[in-house]
Amino acid sequence: MTEQNITVVIEALKAALTEEQVTINETVRELHGRDESYHALQLPDIVVFPETAEQVSAIMKISNQFHIPVIPFGLGSSLEGHVIPTEGGITIDFSLMNKVLEIMGNDFLVKVQPGVTRLQLNKELKKYGLFFSVDPGADATIGGMVATNASGTTSVKYGVMRDQIRDLEVVLADGMVIHTGNLAAKSSSGLHLNGLFTGSEGTLGCFTEITLRVYGIPEHVSAARACFSSVNDAVEAVVSILQAGIPVARVELVDEPSIRQANLYSETDYQEKPTLFLEFHGNEAGLKQDVEFMKDIVEGHGCSEIQFETDTASRNKLWEARHNLAYAFIHGYPGKKMMVTDVCLPISELAGAVAHAREHLESLGLIGGIVGHVGDGNFHVLLMMDLNNPEETAKAADFNERIVLYALERGGTCTGEHGVGIGKQKYQRQEHGDALLVMEKIKQALDPHNLLNPNKNVKAAEKGVHL
Amino acid sequence: MTEQNITVVIEALKAALTEEQVTINETVRELHGRDESYHALQLPDIVVFPETAEQVSAIMKISNQFHIPVIPFGLGSSLEGHVIPTEGGITIDFSLMNKVLEIMGNDFLVKVQPGVTRLQLNKELKKYGLFFSVDPGADATIGGMVATNASGTTSVKYGVMRDQIRDLEVVLADGMVIHTGNLAAKSSSGLHLNGLFTGSEGTLGCFTEITLRVYGIPEHVSAARACFSSVNDAVEAVVSILQAGIPVARVELVDEPSIRQANLYSETDYQEKPTLFLEFHGNEAGLKQDVEFMKDIVEGHGCSEIQFETDTASRNKLWEARHNLAYAFIHGYPGKKMMVTDVCLPISELAGAVAHAREHLESLGLIGGIVGHVGDGNFHVLLMMDLNNPEETAKAADFNERIVLYALERGGTCTGEHGVGIGKQKYQRQEHGDALLVMEKIKQALDPHNLLNPNKNVKAAEKGVHL
Repeated sequence: MTEQNITVVIEALKAALTEEQVTINETVRELHGRDESYHALQLPDIVVFPETAEQVSAIMKISNQFHIPVIPFGLGSSLEGHVIPTEGGITIDFSLMNKVLEIMGNDFLVKVQPGVTRLQLNKELKKYGLFFSVDPGADATIGGMVATNASGTTSVKYGVMRDQIRDLEVVLADGMVIHTGNLAAKSSSGLHLNGLFTGSEGTLGCFTEITLRVYGIPEHVSAARACFSSVNDAVEAVVSILQAGIPVARVELVDEPSIRQANLYSETDYQEKPTLFLEFHGNEAGLKQDVEFMKDIVEGHGCSEIQFETDTASRNKLWEARHNLAYAFIHGYPGKKMMVTDVCLPISELAGAVAHAREHLESLGLIGGIVGHVGDGNFHVLLMMDLNNPEETAKAADFNERIVLYALERGGTCTGEHGVGIGKQKYQRQEHGDALLVMEKIKQALDPHNLLNPNKNVKAAEKGVHL
Repeated sequence: MTEQNITVVIEALKAALTEEQVTINETVRELHGRDESYHALQLPDIVVFPETAEQVSAIMKISNQFHIPVIPFGLGSSLEGHVIPTEGGITIDFSLMNKVLEIMGNDFLVKVQPGVTRLQLNKELKKYGLFFSVDPGADATIGGMVATNASGTTSVKYGVMRDQIRDLEVVLADGMVIHTGNLAAKSSSGLHLNGLFTGSEGTLGCFTEITLRVYGIPEHVSAARACFSSVNDAVEAVVSILQAGIPVARVELVDEPSIRQANLYSETDYQEKPTLFLEFHGNEAGLKQDVEFMKDIVEGHGCSEIQFETDTASRNKLWEARHNLAYAFIHGYPGKKMMVTDVCLPISELAGAVAHAREHLESLGLIGGIVGHVGDGNFHVLLMMDLNNPEETAKAADFNERIVLYALERGGTCTGEHGVGIGKQKYQRQEHGDALLVMEKIKQALDPHNLLNPNKNVKAAEKGVHL
């Protein structure tokens, strides 16, 4: 934007919101120019902090009037550059819209504003004996989690973010406010907008209220660590557990280098072997039978040690160590940035995919750990790279591409849970084929001037005009 | 269509398919002019029986060339007039595309053609120890079940049709063939087309291949009938069971008049009281504990008799009686047609909604039973009416409307599982508000000439030109 245009837009925004809710402060803009990924910083021209859907609607109308892009922003914990303003514009920071609006305990529903974080919500729900199931590790905002269709450790039992959405209040490109759903457990009425807007990465509208499904805190919980002599044995054990129909609530793979990093960072003393972190939810008798059956299975796959974490404190320690793994690597390699791969494959292809990843990691001489939500067929390589070393970044990009192509050739997806953002756009055509044209038509129909988070996820079929 | 136009179109279709796959036979057209509902017969001009996606694509190209509507047809078991050719045109009957193409047992996936029926699929899956969970009662085609986002007795545990869809091969309005998904358990790549096309009722494209999630046959199954002194007690018992976190696999309400009708038709001798039909799936120990807990709960809600059906034969008898209820009413009232209401509400509103329905049924002097998938908050009034009695049909329409408005005012939906078709269109604006404009824009973007099953579900924003 030219300086003159910025001045006019700022005046319009200040008139629609308040002085304090609109800023061009350099530091604030820098905080909104990147996420937690390796993608390069780009600054928004303006950052706004709305408090209501009406204010968001007013911002969209100004965006339309001046043809300026808007970028919705939660906490910036995305991993593929989703919140980076590639063409400048107005970043909408939702941190002031952070209220838990209503807990409908009898209906297992909760209505929140988009800036509420996962841990904030769970703290509130605990008072009612309820919990919000989706657990991506980071304390992301609920709005951001809807935008990327987040999932994580518990999705194998409770489903992904999209499965929890009952209704979204959305401000559309033209400022119109709609509701995409209702409070009923199911519906066959109209087109499924809940599912379409979930995972749309801010490209179809801004969420201003989110109604989510929540669950009763399970009566009994049992967690375990099972060590194996190889990653392959661990993955095959998971496949057998699923095929036996054991309703596992969490099953996470952590490879040897990752356990080492976790021990350093989280001050644990876990055996440095390929490990599964498991959790089971249920009634006491059922759980006992499930856990016994699981023990038989993992022993059949060469499990050398199985350690149960019975009390809440050691269970929390276990999951904290798992969740802190990304930070453990970042902390352990100062000066390097992290690239995280995110493919998801049919479970029958998982063992091969993990072996392929490990082999190429080593042959390229790259540093990284492999972890994964293996019950879903989703795994990550946490890859450390020096952004000032062109050879290393080229190797990392090459590695990411090999992993993606391996998955796509076997019926998988380039992103199981992190989303497309900037980083996975180049694979969209290969993954979706002509279905990409359908996505582009939908984007074009709902955002004809391409104002909503341009250049992320699905691009408009035709490009809008910007200042 | 004029006779001349029909001749030209038939020639084009016969050239693209074969002579035998194209018919204008009056009897065949009549079989494709209605579904199982009370909605009036309207004939297609032509019926075609394609065998491949390529043939369906060729039909769509002819539809485009001559601007003739097409209506996809499974078995005609829909309940809101979905398959009725309101503007004539070409009905595509998928009965020749009825093959189970691939069973991927290790991935819990199956790929089928759209004309495969539910019972046919389950018969095939049984050999592999697997089952397809969605159970709407009727032996519908899988294609039809995707089109309406069908659900039924088991959705409280396993989810609705949309939850099972991994990939759809879809022929679009212009004849292009796309895939909406992949084989991975989850994905955050692109827009969620699986969810958008599921429930689109043939208005966005024709399904030619469907990849579905299936499940291992549960280790142990326990079924029960629990009788109550009032419908209200029964519904409140269900709410308590759900709130206790008992993972019930089926929980069906059958009211007193419906039990009477079932006893007459299915030759059962069930106690004629408001009844819950329940089923639990799990491991032996867990199931036992769940069932004990459930018994305590229903007794606390005044359950007067609880009868367990332990062997497979009596369990099958129980569910057969439930599934045959619609036929039991139709059989019991010769000359009358059935109207089935289908609202779904938040579970906390269910008891009130059922009481409201019963009260109005009686005050209007209408004949009908109330049954429902109460674990989802979804219930049906099976209403018998004489289509030649204008007073009775007016009363029935009035009744349906009261039920719908009651649900919409309480965060519910006009259709939990049957779909919109013709019958629920008048409630779409009230239910969806401005979100309906978004749906219409999507329909317009993907079917600009309004050729795909016009006048069903969501109408195009702008109407196409027909012959």
